[in-house]
Amino acid sequence: MASSVSVDEHAARIARMLAPLLLTRMTEELPLEQSLGRTTAEDIRSAVDLPLFRNSQMDGFAVRAADVVSVPIALEVSGDVPAGHAVPVVLTPGTAIRIMTGAPVPSGADAIVPAEDTEVVLGRDDDLSGAVVEIRRAPESGAFVRERGSDLRRGEVIVPEGTRLAPRHLAALAAAGVVFVKVLARLRVGVITTGAELVQEGRPAEFGQVFDANGIALAALVEEAGATVSYRGSSNDELDSFERVLAEAIAVSDVIVTSGGISKGAYEVVREVLQPRGAEVGSVAMQPGGPQATAIVDGVPVLSFPGNPVSTQVSFTVFLRALLRDAAGLPQIPTEPAVLAAPVRSVPGKRQFLRGRRLSDGRVEQASGAGSHLVAGMARSDVLIDLPADAVDLPAGADVTVWTL
Amino acid sequence: MASSVSVDEHAARIARMLAPLLLTRMTEELPLEQSLGRTTAEDIRSAVDLPLFRNSQMDGFAVRAADVVSVPIALEVSGDVPAGHAVPVVLTPGTAIRIMTGAPVPSGADAIVPAEDTEVVLGRDDDLSGAVVEIRRAPESGAFVRERGSDLRRGEVIVPEGTRLAPRHLAALAAAGVVFVKVLARLRVGVITTGAELVQEGRPAEFGQVFDANGIALAALVEEAGATVSYRGSSNDELDSFERVLAEAIAVSDVIVTSGGISKGAYEVVREVLQPRGAEVGSVAMQPGGPQATAIVDGVPVLSFPGNPVSTQVSFTVFLRALLRDAAGLPQIPTEPAVLAAPVRSVPGKRQFLRGRRLSDGRVEQASGAGSHLVAGMARSDVLIDLPADAVDLPAGADVTVWTL
Repeated sequence: MASSVSVDEHAARIARMLAPLLLTRMTEELPLEQSLGRTTAEDIRSAVDLPLFRNSQMDGFAVRAADVVSVPIALEVSGDVPAGHAVPVVLTPGTAIRIMTGAPVPSGADAIVPAEDTEVVLGRDDDLSGAVVEIRRAPESGAFVRERGSDLRRGEVIVPEGTRLAPRHLAALAAAGVVFVKVLARLRVGVITTGAELVQEGRPAEFGQVFDANGIALAALVEEAGATVSYRGSSNDELDSFERVLAEAIAVSDVIVTSGGISKGAYEVVREVLQPRGAEVGSVAMQPGGPQATAIVDGVPVLSFPGNPVSTQVSFTVFLRALLRDAAGLPQIPTEPAVLAAPVRSVPGKRQFLRGRRLSDGRVEQASGAGSHLVAGMARSDVLIDLPADAVDLPAGADVTVWTL
Repeated sequence: MASSVSVDEHAARIARMLAPLLLTRMTEELPLEQSLGRTTAEDIRSAVDLPLFRNSQMDGFAVRAADVVSVPIALEVSGDVPAGHAVPVVLTPGTAIRIMTGAPVPSGADAIVPAEDTEVVLGRDDDLSGAVVEIRRAPESGAFVRERGSDLRRGEVIVPEGTRLAPRHLAALAAAGVVFVKVLARLRVGVITTGAELVQEGRPAEFGQVFDANGIALAALVEEAGATVSYRGSSNDELDSFERVLAEAIAVSDVIVTSGGISKGAYEVVREVLQPRGAEVGSVAMQPGGPQATAIVDGVPVLSFPGNPVSTQVSFTVFLRALLRDAAGLPQIPTEPAVLAAPVRSVPGKRQFLRGRRLSDGRVEQASGAGSHLVAGMARSDVLIDLPADAVDLPAGADVTVWTL
């Protein structure tokens, strides 16, 4: 057993192990329809002008402003352009063409007169052939005309690199005809739980067995941090069993997390398999979460957390969450200062991550006992109260640091 | 055309239309594995005690504290309980049983002596038959024993109603053997865009056509608000076409949103189909987003937004987002006060929702022109700057309200 290291030292070791994955910034091309919430891996430039063509901002009549200087004036209706009309239309000077919002402005026209400033005085709304429209307001040149490219020019950036794609980004990309986008790939994280006592979901627990809480917790933490679960497996305490799931996980993962099997007991399958492969197996001066191991197996970083469910979740939060969020381009969840609402007891020599709750006044209090098996107590918590290794008992009102869960 | 109503009046009308859906609070049973991020529809109580059985907090030796009053003392090792051991074990008084973390404490034992306070003085670590262990520290009764039910008692609430399920909740539920959870159902929202000029993703745009930005934007907004897209369709300007997609959407949806086809033009398919069915088609005193319609068709609320892409997105944000988030049990995104970093021009008589950007100092500035076709400008924005109907031009430093996109 290696000697004890600090939380910061262990975090730095894990950051170094994952640095190549973060530097490489693997990317993938995704259909726009599947890219909500993903992070762009490049500036996405437009291949077109937006608007695509000069079009009308109003339902009304397209005219030459020079023809409508003194109003009212009656103009022959020489055509009709609904939206989506596929043939370029030319305005005969001295006439008007009916036009719908978004429809291409006829060439020769330079202004739109909104329908409410007009009246069809001869002809019918549903048959404009031979109709005459009275124009009641003189437009300025350019009135209600949306010029091609006035929103975005061809070649301009629609969405810059590093943007987490929201609905409004998808709208702009779709409007520019973008169908695929290059986004940061999700890191593929394999999740392995270990322990002969674990029962997987849906099976009954015999005496001495417990339902596996770590598999679902780690998988959910991985997803929440913007990575994807590439493998889920569980091993009993036989070396062969762990060797097998580890090999399966390695084949499909960029990173592997394991729970259990790394402390000083007699059946520590993760330690026994990984130590001969060069794993660092040791102790971090923290509670919960003391036993920790890391290894690189066939080039894949393996982070081994202790098996108590609170230890597993705290380890992920402290050592892996920020790295996965970084890889996914998600905003970090910063630690924050807070004030204790009630005294807490610390254990000098080890950094404490107490499970706590934020009160409505912003202060925090402990929400669960210290035991690393108190999985229901963890569910009642929404922060980790981070006490430094040299803290002794702290009174109400003391300043602490909290990690938001 | 009905007369103009205020934003608040129109929002209240839509809230009334959706009230039955919100009051009913439809629920569904989901496998725990699929419930991350969903909201519990009931208190979820435990059918078991947690821990499930009295177990060891440490690797070490289970003893009777009364046998280990003066130390050091040598005890015969009468057994070995690995984690997951399936047979209840009884401690013979005056002996010790080796035990692993999490393993059931033998009946008759009332304390665990951690391995570091012991030494096996006769026998081998891998074969304890006939071994003797020296106990070097006298434990108190109860030391390192996790009592059954000390985390949670059978019948207690693991996760209360209205909880958005995070990884730590899934862990506690899994630990208690919960396999299915009752969560709020996602509202099923049908999305229909209209307009003969619309081209769907992946097809080329002919002259006069535009790529449909509203379908993907509304679908993404619906998903982001915790509902699910039950239908996606697009209609041209023929009544038959809209009738058909509307019928398809109604068959599978709790709510329908449409874009386009509700203003004063000559080819307003949504207005023409819905008005005979009792739709309220009118104008809301807002920019963008003036034309608005609502209807209840075959019992399904239909909200019809105008077709300009900025108008569509602003309408969803102002009128529907909060209701869908409420139905999903998601936290609301409150409007907030902010200060203008630069002057803005308002149009008196209509409430303005300018597309804006939050600066690093917290002030906001306009990020796009006022045109409701400026879809790329909307993508550059992260707030809507909400100016009241009576606002005239506002100087830098003016107080405004912002909606976070």
